[in-house]
Amino acid sequence: MENPGYCSGSFDSLHHPRVIDEVADDDDDDEMVDIAGATLDFSSTDDVPPLSSASGARTAAGVNGTGPSKLVDPLEDLLPGVGTYEDFNTIDWVREKSKDRDRHREITNKSRRSTVDLLISVSDAFSGWLLMLLVGLMSGALAGGIDIAAHWLTDMKEGVCLIGFWFNHEHCCWNSNETTFQERDRCPQWQSWAELITGTPEGAFAYIVNYLMYIFWALLFAFLAVALVRAFAPYACGSGIPEIKTILSGFIIRGYLGKWTLIIKTITLVLAVSSGLSLGKEGPLVHVACCCANILCHLFTKYRKNEAKRREVLSAAAAVGVSVAFGAPIGGVLFSLEEVSYYFPLKTLWRSFFAALVAAFTLRSINPFGNSRLVLFYVEFHAPWHLVELAPFILLGIFGGLWGALFIRANIAWCRRRKTTRLGHYAVTEVLVVAAVTALLAFPNSYTRMSGAELISELFNDCSLLDSSQLCGYKQPANTSETGVGNSLADRPAGEGLYTALWQLALALVFKILITVITFGMKVPSGLFIPSMAVGAIAGRLLGVGMEQLAYYHHDWFIFKGWCETKGSKPEMFRLNPLGGGVTRMTVSLVVIMFELTGGLEYIVPLMAATMTSKWVADAFGREGIYEAHIRLNGYPFLEPKEEFDHSSLAVDVMRPRRSDPALAMLTQEGMTVGEVEALVESTRYSGFPVVVSQESQRLVGFVLRRDLLISIDNARKRQDGVVSASQVVFTEHVPPHAADGPPPLRLRGIMDLSPFTVTDHTPMDITVDIFRKLGLRQCLVTHNGKLLGIITKKDILKHMAHIANRDPDSILFN
Amino acid sequence: MENPGYCSGSFDSLHHPRVIDEVADDDDDDEMVDIAGATLDFSSTDDVPPLSSASGARTAAGVNGTGPSKLVDPLEDLLPGVGTYEDFNTIDWVREKSKDRDRHREITNKSRRSTVDLLISVSDAFSGWLLMLLVGLMSGALAGGIDIAAHWLTDMKEGVCLIGFWFNHEHCCWNSNETTFQERDRCPQWQSWAELITGTPEGAFAYIVNYLMYIFWALLFAFLAVALVRAFAPYACGSGIPEIKTILSGFIIRGYLGKWTLIIKTITLVLAVSSGLSLGKEGPLVHVACCCANILCHLFTKYRKNEAKRREVLSAAAAVGVSVAFGAPIGGVLFSLEEVSYYFPLKTLWRSFFAALVAAFTLRSINPFGNSRLVLFYVEFHAPWHLVELAPFILLGIFGGLWGALFIRANIAWCRRRKTTRLGHYAVTEVLVVAAVTALLAFPNSYTRMSGAELISELFNDCSLLDSSQLCGYKQPANTSETGVGNSLADRPAGEGLYTALWQLALALVFKILITVITFGMKVPSGLFIPSMAVGAIAGRLLGVGMEQLAYYHHDWFIFKGWCETKGSKPEMFRLNPLGGGVTRMTVSLVVIMFELTGGLEYIVPLMAATMTSKWVADAFGREGIYEAHIRLNGYPFLEPKEEFDHSSLAVDVMRPRRSDPALAMLTQEGMTVGEVEALVESTRYSGFPVVVSQESQRLVGFVLRRDLLISIDNARKRQDGVVSASQVVFTEHVPPHAADGPPPLRLRGIMDLSPFTVTDHTPMDITVDIFRKLGLRQCLVTHNGKLLGIITKKDILKHMAHIANRDPDSILFN
Repeated sequence: MENPGYCSGSFDSLHHPRVIDEVADDDDDDEMVDIAGATLDFSSTDDVPPLSSASGARTAAGVNGTGPSKLVDPLEDLLPGVGTYEDFNTIDWVREKSKDRDRHREITNKSRRSTVDLLISVSDAFSGWLLMLLVGLMSGALAGGIDIAAHWLTDMKEGVCLIGFWFNHEHCCWNSNETTFQERDRCPQWQSWAELITGTPEGAFAYIVNYLMYIFWALLFAFLAVALVRAFAPYACGSGIPEIKTILSGFIIRGYLGKWTLIIKTITLVLAVSSGLSLGKEGPLVHVACCCANILCHLFTKYRKNEAKRREVLSAAAAVGVSVAFGAPIGGVLFSLEEVSYYFPLKTLWRSFFAALVAAFTLRSINPFGNSRLVLFYVEFHAPWHLVELAPFILLGIFGGLWGALFIRANIAWCRRRKTTRLGHYAVTEVLVVAAVTALLAFPNSYTRMSGAELISELFNDCSLLDSSQLCGYKQPANTSETGVGNSLADRPAGEGLYTALWQLALALVFKILITVITFGMKVPSGLFIPSMAVGAIAGRLLGVGMEQLAYYHHDWFIFKGWCETKGSKPEMFRLNPLGGGVTRMTVSLVVIMFELTGGLEYIVPLMAATMTSKWVADAFGREGIYEAHIRLNGYPFLEPKEEFDHSSLAVDVMRPRRSDPALAMLTQEGMTVGEVEALVESTRYSGFPVVVSQESQRLVGFVLRRDLLISIDNARKRQDGVVSASQVVFTEHVPPHAADGPPPLRLRGIMDLSPFTVTDHTPMDITVDIFRKLGLRQCLVTHNGKLLGIITKKDILKHMAHIANRDPDSILFN
Repeated sequence: MENPGYCSGSFDSLHHPRVIDEVADDDDDDEMVDIAGATLDFSSTDDVPPLSSASGARTAAGVNGTGPSKLVDPLEDLLPGVGTYEDFNTIDWVREKSKDRDRHREITNKSRRSTVDLLISVSDAFSGWLLMLLVGLMSGALAGGIDIAAHWLTDMKEGVCLIGFWFNHEHCCWNSNETTFQERDRCPQWQSWAELITGTPEGAFAYIVNYLMYIFWALLFAFLAVALVRAFAPYACGSGIPEIKTILSGFIIRGYLGKWTLIIKTITLVLAVSSGLSLGKEGPLVHVACCCANILCHLFTKYRKNEAKRREVLSAAAAVGVSVAFGAPIGGVLFSLEEVSYYFPLKTLWRSFFAALVAAFTLRSINPFGNSRLVLFYVEFHAPWHLVELAPFILLGIFGGLWGALFIRANIAWCRRRKTTRLGHYAVTEVLVVAAVTALLAFPNSYTRMSGAELISELFNDCSLLDSSQLCGYKQPANTSETGVGNSLADRPAGEGLYTALWQLALALVFKILITVITFGMKVPSGLFIPSMAVGAIAGRLLGVGMEQLAYYHHDWFIFKGWCETKGSKPEMFRLNPLGGGVTRMTVSLVVIMFELTGGLEYIVPLMAATMTSKWVADAFGREGIYEAHIRLNGYPFLEPKEEFDHSSLAVDVMRPRRSDPALAMLTQEGMTVGEVEALVESTRYSGFPVVVSQESQRLVGFVLRRDLLISIDNARKRQDGVVSASQVVFTEHVPPHAADGPPPLRLRGIMDLSPFTVTDHTPMDITVDIFRKLGLRQCLVTHNGKLLGIITKKDILKHMAHIANRDPDSILFN
């Protein structure tokens, strides 16, 4: 299937319903598509239909009210399809949650009747926990598999294991008897490609062979990744977090969390990471975990049939993704809370935490790195910090903020270019070119040749006296014996090796910054955490060494006085540089992730200072994080929960119809014929219609969704005798007497929402936006002194906000 | 002042306005009372009144609407007092937040004009962070002071330092030169009371003297505590968390967070902890931190004048309180999120975290325990755990759940007794009796004689071979030399000392359980964390030693096989037993607090298992936590955000007026005279009145609050010429022409809320409750087909919920 510009955000082609159908068909994502055709059949299989029983109870309870004596008529059984949503539409949180409460109430009421029903009720209550357990286990296992496979393929670029090609470098030498402790990563069983082909591991020719093989494998992996994504699951590209944010806010993108996406994303993630492109696996792991959760939801009716409940599970899955990516369960939960989730009740907090723990421990039992740690770059140190050291941390924060702002602008500009120009048509070529350039430039520099995680691990490393790494290439002071080991470690002048390493690091920094801008958003799975952590770690190490040398040569400077005397300078501490704060605008969760990585509260204050600074600096250049920017680029209907609506418009300014528009399309509760209703629905494209008492009084009765209306009329015409175009459509409780010779009326009160949300025309928009956000509304009706005046949809609000911000209101594509 | 039953929850006497005034007067809590008289004076001092300018913009923007050409008339300057709340009333979150957005908008708009205004805008943006910094510093400092003072006074019960009475035992011996390493807590400078009085530290007579002195001091401290609370700040008693939860949900209790409460609570907390009563300082520390925050809020106009913004700060302060209580900043933030806060935006998350960190580091710099740890009972171990060990953890969880359920029932029953019987009149006597009983029973048992924190610290201790503690009184195996140190430590039979210790611990467990039930809720500051942690730690240690001995004597049992072979059994690991889960129903935050105390992810899974089990077990006996139970006991209007409303009633069943009631009291937008309005207001007690177009059409225009109406009419009568009882009251935008000889009309559109919330009569109550919770409403109007039908207030909902749960609906006291 052909859907070229997808990953750079071009949904334009998808906007048309025809294309959506194609996507659904070609995707072969049956398990997702079936939601569209899902039937609320529990009402027909159970002996007491839930809504009828509920409304019966309501009628009984409603007798003591002051309203009409009988408020709710017994609803007919709901038709298949009524109450479901179309693709690329927003769900109605209130309705979904109310539906779930009805279901829950029914189960609770039944549980008193028999033991079996009680068991059903208990199993229903625990199904959420069971689901969480399964999500944790599956995500943890997948993450472990991805880690192992990526490790193996990455090493494949450099050489092969002669014992068995399925061993990675480390395991190959581990199994060998000839490995010595000094040279753990050197054994005869592991041969570089040059060694295998030319027979000699050294020399210019061997270097060229290795270089070419490196590029060859990089291109092969990249090609496989992009080809698989294009062929089987276009939704598998990118980090997935912008889309998951949108889905969690109540949008429907069918197939985005389906089984094909899961399979292809898992495979291509391994390939993309191994190809050496400047991308990480952390964002995509969140997507993978959400796919697992969505697929597992199908095991439980409670979650399969309710979009709101499903989103609670997905919120928890996002926490699981981060938990396995960083081995940080608490950080994962906070990430889900701070960054991804829209609606996060306390229940979800507990379940997220549980699932994140299960996943972390599954991953630990798989032990992909062979060190009983969950990540490659675990650090642990407890040296106290000095107040002076806050200054470089804040400096790093400023750098991080600038890099974040720059990155977002450049990346969005590039993605927009990809979306709007012919560049979008050459997705495969683009990936191949970028992979080739990356491989070409990365190989000569040892810091870019290694994978992002390895680079961070290397940069996080402490320098011990015996360390052979270039980064620890300090000159040995002549008087080592006099000053003792402690001092000689802390306070040494930089040597030749360190200067080389610094140059290489500086080049790597520039290279990483540039290539990441282009890489993020290509049609392969790509995360942003690792590249931005790598940039941060490089900058931190450079600054750390710089500070150290400055302190070495200027012991007498005032600020260094107390510092050097107590413990000498330490370049290592700046390694923990959470520069992501500028890019993603996460703060607390990032600090907690770092805290979990380091396992100590010691550095939390300088880290917090750096993160907050970088957030503030980046905010000064634009308040959007990278995910929000991508959401906007793609035109998703996402109502940012963090930002306040800061304009003094009223509901009447935003509602439709505007002054110049035709009058609001509405139905009357009686007096319209089926033909008239059909004509009205045909002539408009609105997704719902208010029902009023009469056109004159304009007093609001309820709200009917277009989809429900069409399905009901269609069904009635097929099954119900005598329903023709001239039949009356009746929304009242009591059917008015009709002429004996006329066709029987069609009663549709059952599909009408009797409690539509209304605001008055004077309601300030900030309050209206608050209501939309907090209740998760699709639309809201506007009244003036009790008369219906107009309607506000989520899209109207987003268009209005775009208009205020001088952006193109038509960039909001979906409702 | 006399307000006897307060702490056990008797607000009945406060219900009457007269008494409230008395409280306010006697309390001398001026800085709180001034909120009642606070004026929105920025509208009169600034050149452009904010609301006028906003409404001007709205009018301009409203021209393109389909409504009337001119929607909002320029509001007159708001009168002093309009928009404020009375004591024991619920705030309107929507209105408060809207007010703050207006203020913010005005500052932002002005900031473009001049540099000074820009600076004001920037300082406004950063004032939140500055406030957080101050809250953190102040709370940290106070917590440090409390720790030091409590430590000193606790030691005072046993003896005195001869060098200076202001030294506690540890410091006294620290300063002495004669202290040896073996006997760190024994030095000639520190003399027990018996030594000082009788001259001999040993013997029966000395024991009796010490016993009597212990009781004397305990009684003295308890008496001082209760006397201070009664005399100066009745609000200083209890843990304060139920009230803070209610305040954060939008209730007003003037003086509860005032300066007198802060001063008295700080002093009496030290006294109460030192008196040896079975209570902790953790809950009250949250109250102290909230007092600090509330007082510091008065420095910033933004927070002083806005109840909603103030509550954001208080949410963060709750996190600060836990952060200093346990040295757990992340746990504190999660505690605030999970347990205390009602409305917790992301901004608050960041700020809470910042403030919690600042407070933790302030406390660390004060270093009250002299060990650079933030708490007395820091533990650190990294031994892995075995799957078999989950079983005892779950067992502990079940015990915890049972104890939690039992505790809540017993405590609430006792508090209700205190509230309803004459017992409430003898608060001082009660405290003295309980203190005497506690001291009498606690002294002979060394585990109850020490303070709760010391006990936990002792129980958390590892047994080393040299340890002289009774708890480590194992028999030395004969073959020590053969098996090596490691094994001999892990695997020894219990000796005489250990058996004695176990007996004492078992007695202490029973004693703690019983006495805590009576203590919590007395008229002294009392927290629940430490006692319930102590109960948990005792149970955990008992079970741990039991398991260990079982394993020692039955090495061959299947379940012990793998376990003992790998590492031997460890009684220590069960020390971490967060039994609070059953009492407070916190889960995640409790686990995170434990995690921060232990500093390792290792034990998070068994801890989580224990906590979840105890929560589930306790939930089976009743879903309420101790704080919710106390809130209900006190009749506060608190709409529990965690529990779903699970009943199928409709809005029409809950709204007033009921069928038998008189018709809804409403105003018409024109045609009523001042006299008629006053008569209506006088004849009813409602706190607000809907305004309709006319009595016939019942079409809703707006909503007017009683307080605003009274103030406005009163003001108009005083200042505006010609306003007499016969004057027309007009709520329309255009004043209707009035007879030339008649009195001028009184225009009151300015005080009318033009955007009252409405639901239809068919709206299910679960949705309505959701709206109330999420938007923080005070009231909501009910309409049917566009006609006004009735009104639902928060109190109506709570009464309805009480009715459903077969509780007394009249237990809800406030609106």
